[in-house]
Amino acid sequence: MPHALNTVAVVGAGLVGSGWALVFARGGASVRIFDASESIRAGAMARLRSMLEDMQKAGLVDSVEPVLSRITLCHSLEDAVGRADYIQESVLERVEVKQAACAEIDAAMRPDAMVGSSSSGIPASAFTEALPKRSRFLIAHPVNPPHLVPLVELVPAPWTDAGIIPVLRAAMEGWGQAPIEVKGEIEGFILNRLQGALLNEAWALYEAGLASAADIDRTVSEGLGLRWAFMGPFETIDLNAPGGIADYSARLAPLYHRIALSRRDPRPWSAEAIAKAEAERRQALPADQLQARTDWRNRRLMALVGHLRAQPK
Amino acid sequence: MPHALNTVAVVGAGLVGSGWALVFARGGASVRIFDASESIRAGAMARLRSMLEDMQKAGLVDSVEPVLSRITLCHSLEDAVGRADYIQESVLERVEVKQAACAEIDAAMRPDAMVGSSSSGIPASAFTEALPKRSRFLIAHPVNPPHLVPLVELVPAPWTDAGIIPVLRAAMEGWGQAPIEVKGEIEGFILNRLQGALLNEAWALYEAGLASAADIDRTVSEGLGLRWAFMGPFETIDLNAPGGIADYSARLAPLYHRIALSRRDPRPWSAEAIAKAEAERRQALPADQLQARTDWRNRRLMALVGHLRAQPK
Repeated sequence: MPHALNTVAVVGAGLVGSGWALVFARGGASVRIFDASESIRAGAMARLRSMLEDMQKAGLVDSVEPVLSRITLCHSLEDAVGRADYIQESVLERVEVKQAACAEIDAAMRPDAMVGSSSSGIPASAFTEALPKRSRFLIAHPVNPPHLVPLVELVPAPWTDAGIIPVLRAAMEGWGQAPIEVKGEIEGFILNRLQGALLNEAWALYEAGLASAADIDRTVSEGLGLRWAFMGPFETIDLNAPGGIADYSARLAPLYHRIALSRRDPRPWSAEAIAKAEAERRQALPADQLQARTDWRNRRLMALVGHLRAQPK
Repeated sequence: MPHALNTVAVVGAGLVGSGWALVFARGGASVRIFDASESIRAGAMARLRSMLEDMQKAGLVDSVEPVLSRITLCHSLEDAVGRADYIQESVLERVEVKQAACAEIDAAMRPDAMVGSSSSGIPASAFTEALPKRSRFLIAHPVNPPHLVPLVELVPAPWTDAGIIPVLRAAMEGWGQAPIEVKGEIEGFILNRLQGALLNEAWALYEAGLASAADIDRTVSEGLGLRWAFMGPFETIDLNAPGGIADYSARLAPLYHRIALSRRDPRPWSAEAIAKAEAERRQALPADQLQARTDWRNRRLMALVGHLRAQPK
């Protein structure tokens, strides 16, 4: 489906907003970016250039200038939003901050524009209910950083115009992202619920002393995560029994149900386990190397995305 | 730690046993492989050659002949096992089949040899209790196929000699695998518990109609799975907050605990949801293409493993 979202505003120019600006500009849109902080605005274009240079080194964009030239730094929210077909809200994840930003966006936007919020947890109904144009708002939750990890969760509020979803889904595909549709405002949406289910089990195993954090990490990075880098959990099990997913389920659903029953009384991640894991992690990676390791992660992600794109689907 | 496990027997030459034979031979060991089925024995060497040729095409081995020449097909269990330093048991996953095979192995093995079982669910205590040499037995659970996915779960029975674990762990590292140690016979070990936690949440979301199976799959393959292909869940969250894992936990543990509480009353994967997912999957991939897609998965895994090995750690 072609789309006509040619002018995109990004409100908030932190890490998430900057990543979004690159997504849209790389995808060919004219991008107008704004941040309420003067110091963030002052550094925005240099940071975008540096991020693009990293992407170019990894072979993810051909050249920096054509992408950068499609991004305009704006000095008022009205100037960024007024002409936009689509607005990506990426301000701080606090409900009162989102409410204030969305009220300003609502007042400045065209009535036919649409607004996606980068919220990872707060549902759109918590900060758009009172807006005159609330039917044009929904969640468009990216994974961090959005210009490297393509998944985007589209989550409507109860009053979101249903016609927005297919238009925005097609536009996101066109920009090179991987949108999915969440059909209700469930806490954590889909991505963080799946991550949380695995994390909760990982913490429970760790707290019981059944494995080190390093060994639990390895179980994913040298095991489960290899297939999950290019196939989801349903396709994985569909290929893990001769007769497909129904055959797999007939064999293994009882085991997985017993595992679920063993976790009927979930405890919060304990302070003791967190302190122990923190000590184990700081032994493996001192605190002053967290940023360097995050940069390494981003280079690895770029290389991995480059590899995956080159493979036959 | 260097190791002296130079002669390795593989009992069972199905898909798992064949993959193991390639792991050990690629790692430089002399491999003696046996299967009780005459027809499986008759096809074993041709299948191993074909698997090696695929690995060579993907750049995972330099040449076929040196690896293949280290594998000897044996026509009795005694002949395979008698001289071995290490024995990888890979027979059918049924407790009575494992019991019978391990009794034969126990009678034929050297007293100082050690035996790892490829069980994915049955603990070693369920089929080694009565064996005279039971202290030499443990679980060495691979991911399928073992020559492409390096993770191995080492799970001792209560009577396993504790000295085996570090020796076998070092040997597995030397052969290019990624061993972890599970410190108790918990159902599903670590890998299938983590997979099960994510699958149980995926099925619950699917059954509630919150997303299609394809969109849930995409959430992993275009989102969570990208980082998990080279970092585990603890390192992932350690890099997802400025102050590391303790900082991340302070911010997000309450959300994940609420998610756990919302699943306190787990239901088995329902027949209706399985039928619906089966229909959705067969629409995406007809049953007569399951094998071709499994071959594609293995080619993708080989290419991914080649990519990951070439990256800076």
